[in-house]
Amino acid sequence: MTVTRGDVERAAARIAGRVRRTPVVEGDPGVVLKLEGLQHSGSFKVRGAFNRVLAAGRLPGAGVIAASGGNHGVAVAHAARALGVRAEIFVPEICAPVKVARLRALGAAVTLTGSIFAEAYEASAKRAAETGALEIHAYDHPDVVAGQGTVGLELMEQAGGVDTVLVAVGGGGLVAGVTAALDGAAEVVAVEPERIPTLHRAMAMGEPVLVEVGGVAADALGASRIGRIAFDTVTAAGVRSVLVTDDAIVEAREELWRGHRVAAEHSGAAALAALRSGAYVPRPGERIAVVICGANTDPSTLG
Amino acid sequence: MTVTRGDVERAAARIAGRVRRTPVVEGDPGVVLKLEGLQHSGSFKVRGAFNRVLAAGRLPGAGVIAASGGNHGVAVAHAARALGVRAEIFVPEICAPVKVARLRALGAAVTLTGSIFAEAYEASAKRAAETGALEIHAYDHPDVVAGQGTVGLELMEQAGGVDTVLVAVGGGGLVAGVTAALDGAAEVVAVEPERIPTLHRAMAMGEPVLVEVGGVAADALGASRIGRIAFDTVTAAGVRSVLVTDDAIVEAREELWRGHRVAAEHSGAAALAALRSGAYVPRPGERIAVVICGANTDPSTLG
Repeated sequence: MTVTRGDVERAAARIAGRVRRTPVVEGDPGVVLKLEGLQHSGSFKVRGAFNRVLAAGRLPGAGVIAASGGNHGVAVAHAARALGVRAEIFVPEICAPVKVARLRALGAAVTLTGSIFAEAYEASAKRAAETGALEIHAYDHPDVVAGQGTVGLELMEQAGGVDTVLVAVGGGGLVAGVTAALDGAAEVVAVEPERIPTLHRAMAMGEPVLVEVGGVAADALGASRIGRIAFDTVTAAGVRSVLVTDDAIVEAREELWRGHRVAAEHSGAAALAALRSGAYVPRPGERIAVVICGANTDPSTLG
Repeated sequence: MTVTRGDVERAAARIAGRVRRTPVVEGDPGVVLKLEGLQHSGSFKVRGAFNRVLAAGRLPGAGVIAASGGNHGVAVAHAARALGVRAEIFVPEICAPVKVARLRALGAAVTLTGSIFAEAYEASAKRAAETGALEIHAYDHPDVVAGQGTVGLELMEQAGGVDTVLVAVGGGGLVAGVTAALDGAAEVVAVEPERIPTLHRAMAMGEPVLVEVGGVAADALGASRIGRIAFDTVTAAGVRSVLVTDDAIVEAREELWRGHRVAAEHSGAAALAALRSGAYVPRPGERIAVVICGANTDPSTLG
């Protein structure tokens, strides 16, 4: 199953006025940075959350439900509050109290359950079956993918002459949406941490497979398998996959703060790491855009 | 002595390609934020520094000299390095070691002298007389003011329908430059901390006067007297002056991080504080731009 540019265009119309048009700024020569960490809720995830809810039309009384103590959970809680909808968020018991507090501050009902994400997800699915709440998957739903793709539509309006767009991959919602949005107008390079190669491994095996999850970006890119929609969409489009080390991610994040005063979480710096570390080497004159996709970081670790 | 829109336009041509076109983003409804903290060196100051050096033409062998352990010093060091010019920076002995290290990392020769800024400034002026180095004043020079004004030219291109621009005031270089750039196309509101009312007091007294300096934004807005050029330029243009409390500044800075993932130093949040605290109350439908002018802050204090 793939998502198309038309799907992304419809998503853009649906979520207009609900999400911020995030800025692009100049990076190194020939490079622009799309500062999607300045989005509501601190990451791109709110685009998919709004699109999923708005595309669903009339909602059940139980509202929406999602599993995630990270960016997706915060985004769903933000979208639900903005739309006046009840939100229930399931998070594993290890979730940092500050994240639970943030979800509650956004008005969500939070349930702590299970020792890992997969257990919290199972519990949320069971609960959704009981209550009838609308499940908002973190990446593997066409409306979520299409919503994330609106980053790509904006980017091409803001930096139309770009040849290549670098995007980080966790479950693949963003990279698939951006690939659909560009529809061949620019190439997409999918960037993953070496320690969470969901797409890279899937491409090697010919289908989504489970991978071990670790490293500095695991809190946000830590899906253990690439989404089906993402896999189908990016392989159909011939997206290239590159891997970056944790050290490269850490360096790129430091440079964003030092050289740009941009706060990024590790996942948000992963795509830039590919460029700075040489994991992706542009041709001479190639014009690059890099999506800095999240800023939900402890600022005390930036300096 | 006043600075004109023509001066600012010439500055813009001179420094083109040397400074970043910083983005504007949406704030509350009817409000745009100009994120000038994303500028090279982390503040607007580099615009004035480049313009001063480039307008001077052929430079003495001794290069440039300035007094400031803060944003101005870093901006001068940045501009000097970019232009291949020697820079000497005088800072008071109380200057934080991290700031001295940053100046040295930019290749500047740093001299620690005096217990307060005024003593470091005196020493730098004496040194300049000996070496012939080009003095780069932090605010009270027409080329510095004109350079800072390029923020205003950009802003009007980016957000042309704005009625009013809120700008923080220390020595007044930025507010004077922006006032000149706008040339009546939008109103300017000058925002100062209650504890450093250089412009407010000068307006009351009819001329620049010394004020006591204190409070959370003193590291960047801590001029003890408004610049002559700033005073003449903004009073001729009928700029309004408002004061904000330190509490309001702290709150605005927190909101920039919490709601926008924008890192700002206290001075950088002062203009927004006027809006959020009600020190400046827009008319219904009034469209506002707020200059977030600096991001050189300890990020561990943002959270």
